[in-house]
Amino acid sequence: MKQIGVIGASRCDAEIYEIAYEVGRLIARRGYILINGGLGGVMEASAKGAMDEGGLVIGVIPYSDKNLANEYCTAVIATNMGHARNMIIVHSSDALIAVDGGYGTVSEMAIALKEGKRVVAIKPKVILDGLLVAENAEQAVDMISD
Amino acid sequence: MKQIGVIGASRCDAEIYEIAYEVGRLIARRGYILINGGLGGVMEASAKGAMDEGGLVIGVIPYSDKNLANEYCTAVIATNMGHARNMIIVHSSDALIAVDGGYGTVSEMAIALKEGKRVVAIKPKVILDGLLVAENAEQAVDMISD
Amino acid sequence: MKQIGVIGASRCDAEIYEIAYEVGRLIARRGYILINGGLGGVMEASAKGAMDEGGLVIGVIPYSDKNLANEYCTAVIATNMGHARNMIIVHSSDALIAVDGGYGTVSEMAIALKEGKRVVAIKPKVILDGLLVAENAEQAVDMISD
Amino acid sequence: MKQIGVIGASRCDAEIYEIAYEVGRLIARRGYILINGGLGGVMEASAKGAMDEGGLVIGVIPYSDKNLANEYCTAVIATNMGHARNMIIVHSSDALIAVDGGYGTVSEMAIALKEGKRVVAIKPKVILDGLLVAENAEQAVDMISD
Repeated sequence: MKQIGVIGASRCDAEIYEIAYEVGRLIARRGYILINGGLGGVMEASAKGAMDEGGLVIGVIPYSDKNLANEYCTAVIATNMGHARNMIIVHSSDALIAVDGGYGTVSEMAIALKEGKRVVAIKPKVILDGLLVAENAEQAVDMISD
Repeated sequence: MKQIGVIGASRCDAEIYEIAYEVGRLIARRGYILINGGLGGVMEASAKGAMDEGGLVIGVIPYSDKNLANEYCTAVIATNMGHARNMIIVHSSDALIAVDGGYGTVSEMAIALKEGKRVVAIKPKVILDGLLVAENAEQAVDMISD
Repeated sequence: MKQIGVIGASRCDAEIYEIAYEVGRLIARRGYILINGGLGGVMEASAKGAMDEGGLVIGVIPYSDKNLANEYCTAVIATNMGHARNMIIVHSSDALIAVDGGYGTVSEMAIALKEGKRVVAIKPKVILDGLLVAENAEQAVDMISD
Repeated sequence: MKQIGVIGASRCDAEIYEIAYEVGRLIARRGYILINGGLGGVMEASAKGAMDEGGLVIGVIPYSDKNLANEYCTAVIATNMGHARNMIIVHSSDALIAVDGGYGTVSEMAIALKEGKRVVAIKPKVILDGLLVAENAEQAVDMISD
C-alpha cells in the first residue's frame, strides 16, 4: 500500500489548515495511507481530512505518550525521539507533500530529497534543489500519484 | 484505540508460530490494533493472525526500506534505527505480549516493565521482575484486557 | 582506541558505587575510553573513577540538554532519545561491563549479546545466555582485555 | 566544556576541505571539543584540523560499526541510526559551524535553529531564517565564541 507523508508546522493559519485538510482528503480518496507527525496544525488538518474520507492515518509523534497525538490518528507511533522522528516519517513515506512549514519541515524535505524521494511543496518558504512546487492540494496529490 | 505490542523472535518453530498466530487473531477480534516489529517468525505469525480477522497491523521495522516488512502489515513504519526500533514498539503499545523470544525480546520486555507497562509472556526463556506469564494465547490476551 | 561501555542503574548503594568506581579507574589505567549513560549511580561512579585516573569519559545521555550529564564526563552526547540511547552505548562499545543494574541494564546486555559483544557482569540480577560473570572490578576488566 | 558541531558534506573539493580543516584547528586552539559526523569530506577535514592542534574530536556516525569512522576521531559514537544521528549532533553541540554542505547539512541547520542554537555558515547553499554567515574560518569561530 502506498504511504504518503504530509509534513508541515504544528501551528498554522486558517488558509493553510484548509489546504492541508484537502490534501488529507485527496490522499485518502485515492486509497493511500497518510503518515504524519501526529500533532497540531498541518498534521491535524491533513489527518482530519483523511479520516473524513474514511482513510487510514498513522501519527508518528516525538513523545513517549501515545495519548499526546491529535484525535484523528487511526494508530499512533510514540517514538520518544524528538526531531529524530522526522527521519522516520521520511523513511516510511513513498512520497511527501509539504504544506507551508517551518524548520522541522525543512529537515524532512532535505532528508527526503537526499533519499531520492519525490517531495511536493505547497507554499514553501525555502526552496531546495529537486523540490517540486504545486499550486494547490489537487495538483500536489496528482504529482505524487503515477 | 488500544494498541497491543506482540514481541518475539524473527525465526521460530511451528508450535511458537501457531501460538503467535492465535495471539494475533485474538487481539484483532477484540478490536485492538497490533503493533510489532514487521519481520518474520512471531512477528509474521501474529500479523497474519490479526489480518485474517480483519484487524489492523502496524509493522515497525529496523530498516529504511518499507518493502522489507512482511506482507501482513496494514502499514509499515520504516525506522532505519536497528534495535532502537524496539523502544518505539514499547512506547507505542498500551500492553505487550511476548511469545518465546530471544535477546531482542528481552530488551523490549525490560524497557516495557521499566515504563510500568503490563507485559505478559508465553513460554518465556528469561523471567524478569514484574513479568506476567500466561499458559496460552487466550489467557495472555485476557491478561492484557481489562 | 578501545571503547568500553559501563552499564548499571542510575541509583545504587555504596558497595555498588565503590565497585563501579574501581571499574572506571581500571578502564582508564589501561588506556581505554569509557562510554556510559552519563547519569548518576553506576554511571557517575565509573566516570569519576576514570577521571581520577586521567581517563576519557563519554556520557551518552537520554536527554536533549547536555548539562544534565554528571560532572565527570569529558564529553557529552545528548541524544534526546530516551531508552534508545542504550542501543547507542552498546554499538559504541567494543565490550561492556555491567555492575548490578536494573531493567535498562538488562536491555543493554541483551542487545550487546545479540550483537556478539563480550559482556561481563558483576553482581548481575538476571543471567542471560552468553553473559560472563566476574567476582570483582579487576577480574571484570581483565575479562574484557585481551 | 564547550562542544562545537561542525557540519558539512562527506565529499568536498580542496577549497572546502581547507576551510573545514582551519575551522577544526581554531576550535581546538580555543579549547573546545569538536563534534561531527565522523565520516569524510568536511567531517574528516575538521577532525584532522582539531587533532593537529591536540584537540578532542567526537565522531557521531550513522553506522553500527565504530571502525567506519575516519581516523581523526578521539572517540566514536556508533549510533546505527542513519540520518537521525544528525539530530544527536545538533543536541550535543552548544553552537554549530556549517561549511558548504548538502541536504544533510540543511537538516542539521534547520533543527539547530529550531532549538535556538547559534548556527554560522561558511559558503552556504541554502539560507534559513536566523542563519549567520561568515566569510572564513576565523570569523566563523569568532562568531560562536562569546
